[in-house]
Amino acid sequence: MALADRLLLGPGPSNPYPEATAALAAPLLGHLDPKFLDILDETCERLRTVWGTTNARTLPLSGTGSIGMEAAFANFVQPGTVAVIAVNGLFGERMVDVAGRYGAHVVRVDHDWGDPVDIQRVLDAHDSPALVAAVHAETSTGVRSDIGTLATAVHERDPEALVLADCVTSLAGIEVAADDWGVDIGYSGTQKCLGVSPGLAPFTVSERAWQRRVPNPPTWYLDLGLIGDYVSGAEGGGRTYHHTAPVAMIASLHAGLGRVLDEGLPEVFARHAEAGARLREGVAELGLELFAAEGHRLPELTTVWVPDGVNSAEVRAQLLNEYGIEIGAGAGKYASSVWRIGLMGHNARIDRAELVVAALRRVLAS
Amino acid sequence: MALADRLLLGPGPSNPYPEATAALAAPLLGHLDPKFLDILDETCERLRTVWGTTNARTLPLSGTGSIGMEAAFANFVQPGTVAVIAVNGLFGERMVDVAGRYGAHVVRVDHDWGDPVDIQRVLDAHDSPALVAAVHAETSTGVRSDIGTLATAVHERDPEALVLADCVTSLAGIEVAADDWGVDIGYSGTQKCLGVSPGLAPFTVSERAWQRRVPNPPTWYLDLGLIGDYVSGAEGGGRTYHHTAPVAMIASLHAGLGRVLDEGLPEVFARHAEAGARLREGVAELGLELFAAEGHRLPELTTVWVPDGVNSAEVRAQLLNEYGIEIGAGAGKYASSVWRIGLMGHNARIDRAELVVAALRRVLAS
Repeated sequence: MALADRLLLGPGPSNPYPEATAALAAPLLGHLDPKFLDILDETCERLRTVWGTTNARTLPLSGTGSIGMEAAFANFVQPGTVAVIAVNGLFGERMVDVAGRYGAHVVRVDHDWGDPVDIQRVLDAHDSPALVAAVHAETSTGVRSDIGTLATAVHERDPEALVLADCVTSLAGIEVAADDWGVDIGYSGTQKCLGVSPGLAPFTVSERAWQRRVPNPPTWYLDLGLIGDYVSGAEGGGRTYHHTAPVAMIASLHAGLGRVLDEGLPEVFARHAEAGARLREGVAELGLELFAAEGHRLPELTTVWVPDGVNSAEVRAQLLNEYGIEIGAGAGKYASSVWRIGLMGHNARIDRAELVVAALRRVLAS
Repeated sequence: MALADRLLLGPGPSNPYPEATAALAAPLLGHLDPKFLDILDETCERLRTVWGTTNARTLPLSGTGSIGMEAAFANFVQPGTVAVIAVNGLFGERMVDVAGRYGAHVVRVDHDWGDPVDIQRVLDAHDSPALVAAVHAETSTGVRSDIGTLATAVHERDPEALVLADCVTSLAGIEVAADDWGVDIGYSGTQKCLGVSPGLAPFTVSERAWQRRVPNPPTWYLDLGLIGDYVSGAEGGGRTYHHTAPVAMIASLHAGLGRVLDEGLPEVFARHAEAGARLREGVAELGLELFAAEGHRLPELTTVWVPDGVNSAEVRAQLLNEYGIEIGAGAGKYASSVWRIGLMGHNARIDRAELVVAALRRVLAS
């Protein structure tokens, strides 16, 4: 088969940083090789920097971003755990599904898609939840919610409550300050702003949450106690084998994080902000309307109403086939009425914004 | 950090086929791109060939080999399901753990490590189990068990019973004939004889088993009903998004399978058999004793007793540091008394066998 060279401007995956791609093809190491364990340790340390945390339990889980959500609920809710979940898009909706499977008593707080999480309504939903969960950057709608304010308010009322944040589309694209904000459990994916192929879920757990994890969760593969013994070493002992780590993917994440931290997080955030702003300007010049609520728009993921009378799928196919550019359909009931355009990681660049606007202009005029 | 170039002759990962490594670094495609879906479809078709099956539900799961075991029990046992599990090594032991977490009533049939599964004892363990599980190639001991005879006997007694086989270290190294044998549920890993980096778990489910899967398993990420809708399309409908597929890993598996099938499965099995035979000869020339029971030794993974007075870890470290060769320690209580030497996938070659024997000779004499 001929290889296709795509510009991935959908909701993820994005085109990886070149360093991340090169690392995938480096000579493979064994998962217990001292040189690999050095790479793993340094990867965890780099992840702490992008998460804004000193959490000992900060590690890449061996699956794509969704496995982070699964691990979060599998290890921190059990039958009867009261979990307040803010739902303002597909991924909040999915949290409700996953939490319910593990037996949580879920109190859902519904919002219109496109709106940010309403912190007061989340607080008012239950007096004493064990866990409060929300999505930082909703990949389905392009909306940013204020996790810092939410977490602070939750902990002011009850220092024992745990705050869980989905940072799949935020980490390394906009600021995430897990410790300052008081995020107890956070997960992300590699294929968005981190600029690495899909395959790992960066995960962090506060010490407070760690002490209160479910001791023997239904899942063996995602039992954080067992995984922690391999990644960080058992308490009072050495590392113990759990499952074979996806060594090539971890080497790639290590390299992608190296690129991000060499550039500097503030610079990376500024680059995402500039690219997103340029895209929003360009979209406005085309006369298109934005979907996400003003003031809460993610720079890394812009959602646009498909103009009346335009066939969403045809435009996307034309962009793909004529320009090699992938943009995303909308999610859920907005599948054919919204486009999602991502400028994430290596693609968070002015030239990418210009190119997709130019291509959209041509296609819409054709 | 300087890159290390290792010869991976432990129990896995093995060095990937060059084609598999090259595919990892190919331009990334989106997980919904038609070109990627073609690659995914062809990967599933190639997997059917190596599994020896026509099962529609044959697909790569998004995690390392152990996620296959997790998915097998999560989707096919629920509280009270009677599962007979043959335990003749670490991975049989792990099956007991995983099945128990999902509530199965486990009837374990213990064997000495190093022995193959005793089919009559497994049959005698329970009159009417819903599921009978065994490991085809025990990675912890280097032992092959006769899954074909076991599956036939189970189904002769009860056509409704499901047979589950762990083929992590057998697939594409020795014959696996899922349909002829009557394996209902099988899983494998990419990092052994398939010659691809760790990160995916090839999985197959018979139609009979599919109809009897747990309808709403505790796990969302590994809910085969949901995954099947993405990989194979929903019944009567198109593909639906589940989680972002690890596209680079799937492209790599596609390429690795292409290499294996271009060579031809009989030729690949013969290559593993020859390399394994040469290694056993060489080990005998060194005066070392084999661990696995005679007549049941895997060509792709040879287990060797560490000679009296020899420090296992020091020998392994010397092989790694002076020769760049990784061999494995033993598993469980044999950690320091057994070595595991793998000749899998791209490493199933006479020259690899010669090299590791020569290096061992030097190190043992030093």
